[in-house]
Amino acid sequence: MASYEEYLNVALLAAKEAGAVIKDSFYKDKHVEHKGAVDLVTETDKKCEELVLGTIHKSFPDHKFIGEEGSAAQGFTDALTSAPTWMCDPVDGTTNFVHSFPFVCVCIGLAVEKQVVVGVVYNPVMGEMFTAIRGKGAFLNGSPIRASSCSQLGSALAITEIGVTRDEQTLGALFGRITALTKQVRAVRAMGSCALDMCCVACGRADISYEIGFGGPWDVAAASLIVEEAGGEVLDPAGGPFDIMSRRVMATNGQLAQAASSVLSGMKLGPHEPQPAQ
Amino acid sequence: MASYEEYLNVALLAAKEAGAVIKDSFYKDKHVEHKGAVDLVTETDKKCEELVLGTIHKSFPDHKFIGEEGSAAQGFTDALTSAPTWMCDPVDGTTNFVHSFPFVCVCIGLAVEKQVVVGVVYNPVMGEMFTAIRGKGAFLNGSPIRASSCSQLGSALAITEIGVTRDEQTLGALFGRITALTKQVRAVRAMGSCALDMCCVACGRADISYEIGFGGPWDVAAASLIVEEAGGEVLDPAGGPFDIMSRRVMATNGQLAQAASSVLSGMKLGPHEPQPAQ
Repeated sequence: MASYEEYLNVALLAAKEAGAVIKDSFYKDKHVEHKGAVDLVTETDKKCEELVLGTIHKSFPDHKFIGEEGSAAQGFTDALTSAPTWMCDPVDGTTNFVHSFPFVCVCIGLAVEKQVVVGVVYNPVMGEMFTAIRGKGAFLNGSPIRASSCSQLGSALAITEIGVTRDEQTLGALFGRITALTKQVRAVRAMGSCALDMCCVACGRADISYEIGFGGPWDVAAASLIVEEAGGEVLDPAGGPFDIMSRRVMATNGQLAQAASSVLSGMKLGPHEPQPAQ
Repeated sequence: MASYEEYLNVALLAAKEAGAVIKDSFYKDKHVEHKGAVDLVTETDKKCEELVLGTIHKSFPDHKFIGEEGSAAQGFTDALTSAPTWMCDPVDGTTNFVHSFPFVCVCIGLAVEKQVVVGVVYNPVMGEMFTAIRGKGAFLNGSPIRASSCSQLGSALAITEIGVTRDEQTLGALFGRITALTKQVRAVRAMGSCALDMCCVACGRADISYEIGFGGPWDVAAASLIVEEAGGEVLDPAGGPFDIMSRRVMATNGQLAQAASSVLSGMKLGPHEPQPAQ
């Protein structure tokens, strides 16, 4: 079995390869009126996915993958087992990418024994590479990062996402949560990338981030380790333990974990929003 | 009377001077628990204001200023007259600055005959300098920029702000507007700087931005010209003409002006939110 450093090096290589493709097409014109059309967005997405999965698969052919698409022959699986399992989102923040809005990233996380041990989140447009190895701290472009020391909810900057669901009940629940939090914190932001939101908490630019109902574990695996290794805490938005498969996440600087989750705990969910684990 | 180019050159100089101060202190630790304390934030704000106003006043001693603070002896006035009048926000996005969240900018606009003729918005952290002279186009770091060509509300990226007011009625009105817009557009973002939101529209990263109840004309003067010179349109969020003194603004790529303002037109306002001009 390779060392965590070797895993990280391969993840870094894959992130840089995909990042170069994203950066190259980032400011080109992208008209995406019809989903499914072969266009620059689809092409970039596909190319990044091939690069990330190809690079990892070549180095570690026995490892598993959990991702949005992919066959069992390529090592894809639906369930997280104790086997080394990569969870990658080659282009996180696709809507931002479409609009050349500079918050996109490559997310690459590796779980061993169901625990994330290596994480890379790379925003190639802003040139920010967040990395972590379990037990070895978190870094931004090679410099150590720490979550903030903010201890008062009223002084906190929070980030969340407005999401993609548009039905009345889900929007009501979503804005109910944002309203409740807005009453308690200093300010709220929404940037369009769950992984980068979490990395903002990891490097102290924000104190709290949360999202309910994102795509899957590939969106949060790498960032969850980066937050923890930066001294922050990752939990369920309702206050329970973080479940990487639950499509629910909150990241805080640690000190604000209880105060922030108690604002959201017990609040109504939309009909299609994932419930906290029992 | 100096040429518009001369005005722009002085504005650029002032923006760079203030930007250097912001950048220098940006990633330093800033604890601001008590408003009014002499701390890094207050110091930076004060220093940037002195630099911006000092540089402009030295070059154009007869010009007027409209700003958050300043005496009549320094040329400060409350009303916009036909005299050359500068509207500057030396640090826009103070909350972001406090949290080292990289969306802060220096805003410098000059109105002559009540019309903004020169505008500079500079984000020193991301190294982005937006500039415009009336009739001469808009630029980002010297390259021409254009608003997007998005023609469908459903494909639009919109930016707004959650603001600082925390009373129940105002929050209800604010989230009522955001909910209404969210139902119609592809996605909504909130970044914490009204001027940078508008510059995102100017360079096509977003298609719509709006805010009701920001500080004053210094927040939007420069950016309003940059949007117009990039081929966008600045209007009142309810669809009427833009009034620079109204603390209400919407920027769109032009094509979406009517569709976006018709979503917000007629929606309830909070008790302290500014009404559209009659």
